[in-house]
Amino acid sequence: MSLDSIRSTLIRQEDSTIFALIERAQFRRNEAIYAKGILQLDPSIPDYPFLNSLSFLEYLLLETEKLHGKVRRYTSPEEHAFFPQYLPSPILTPLQFPTLLAPNTVDVNAQILDLYIHEIVPAVCKEGDDEQHGSSVLADITLLQAISRRIHLGKFVAETKFQESEAQYRALVAADDVEGVMALLTDTAVEARVLERAKLKASTYGQDITGETEECKVEPEVIAAIYRDVIIPLTKDVEVLYLFERVGREVPFPLPAPAEEYRLRVGGRI
Amino acid sequence: MSLDSIRSTLIRQEDSTIFALIERAQFRRNEAIYAKGILQLDPSIPDYPFLNSLSFLEYLLLETEKLHGKVRRYTSPEEHAFFPQYLPSPILTPLQFPTLLAPNTVDVNAQILDLYIHEIVPAVCKEGDDEQHGSSVLADITLLQAISRRIHLGKFVAETKFQESEAQYRALVAADDVEGVMALLTDTAVEARVLERAKLKASTYGQDITGETEECKVEPEVIAAIYRDVIIPLTKDVEVLYLFERVGREVPFPLPAPAEEYRLRVGGRI
Repeated sequence: MSLDSIRSTLIRQEDSTIFALIERAQFRRNEAIYAKGILQLDPSIPDYPFLNSLSFLEYLLLETEKLHGKVRRYTSPEEHAFFPQYLPSPILTPLQFPTLLAPNTVDVNAQILDLYIHEIVPAVCKEGDDEQHGSSVLADITLLQAISRRIHLGKFVAETKFQESEAQYRALVAADDVEGVMALLTDTAVEARVLERAKLKASTYGQDITGETEECKVEPEVIAAIYRDVIIPLTKDVEVLYLFERVGREVPFPLPAPAEEYRLRVGGRI
Repeated sequence: MSLDSIRSTLIRQEDSTIFALIERAQFRRNEAIYAKGILQLDPSIPDYPFLNSLSFLEYLLLETEKLHGKVRRYTSPEEHAFFPQYLPSPILTPLQFPTLLAPNTVDVNAQILDLYIHEIVPAVCKEGDDEQHGSSVLADITLLQAISRRIHLGKFVAETKFQESEAQYRALVAADDVEGVMALLTDTAVEARVLERAKLKASTYGQDITGETEECKVEPEVIAAIYRDVIIPLTKDVEVLYLFERVGREVPFPLPAPAEEYRLRVGGRI
């Protein structure tokens, strides 16, 4: 594992994420799919009260995770379920993964789901309801899984950086210096390149090939803002959380930060 | 419903299909996921002998369809399950779809699955096994669903054409003139535009944005060949099948044609 090989994984993951953003953007916001408790499931199904209290997105995400969990998806250190407490045991023989990470409990999926619904969907989808609820939920699930994978790959970045500068990270963590850890792991030149690349990918993959409109399927500025204001900051939170746990010390204040700190700053919205 | 509105649906569906082809192409062929009976499922699961006889792809496709069937996916006339005989009843209240098609039984998914595994995967993926079996199967499922949706949208095309030239189609069908029906519904200028557009989309969406290589993630010629040799011919088979059933007459010979007729003619392969 090297920082270069992780970076090329992250760059390939950008394509999947931006494809998935463009796919979701073809449908309206369809806010009904995020409303809890309106599914009216059949009361005879197992776990009825709990399942019926979920939104359509949560219900299908949970059931998808249960299915993928059966075929071992969440035994991979790169994958994090949004509903880990409900996963069944895999029905396939276990795989051996190389031990690249220290054991850890870092998981920011609750924050990702919240920001996804309240920031990302309103930024990429037009208002209103086009009745494409099933297709929208499936696009949501693909996109949430892509974003979650991207953000939690921060653990691998953190482990590599830790191995390169172990003494420095240990000293900063021992001093409860969250800002110092954040500063040491931040590479502003790399972050600027990520934003430039995200914008370029958005304008390339999102263009109207038939040439009937100049408009991109998702504004490149919006995609860059999603990286700048949500994906990169949450990735860095994952890195800090991982490094503190790596050294065996509690983070002195709760991370990820409160949701307000990740609001998208784009277009007319502040 | 007009031919124009169906065509714009088909054009948008191209983007989804080409994105999905590019996503699958990041993994190797991983032929083990298409081999039947090697899953070694837990014998205590329901339907064990049948499920254990499937390939990994078939197993996860079937389970995904069962899940999506529960939330009404296959009540839409645009959606066709690969395993319709195993679908559960939906657990949500039924939706009303506008009646645009005549009732029909047209379904070429068995042919699509066969050609997908034996023609499309070998054409878009590098040989070998990269152990990304779960990710490859999920990419397969998204892609199969996109291709199936595209091909079965041919029913809507056929219905529109039938309404525009009912007397002509009735006469050709009554004369068992499959070739004549095929000729009447064929628009070679539109087909040429589809191929040009597929190539352009493949070279745009599949380019390496970082500029490290000139190579596309999937050769544009391969994507055009998939449209020319598989997607368009199967769509036209769907149209013919639908039109014969529309008039209440059996097709005089089996359609879709035998798999040999859809072999991809691309690169070194004939």
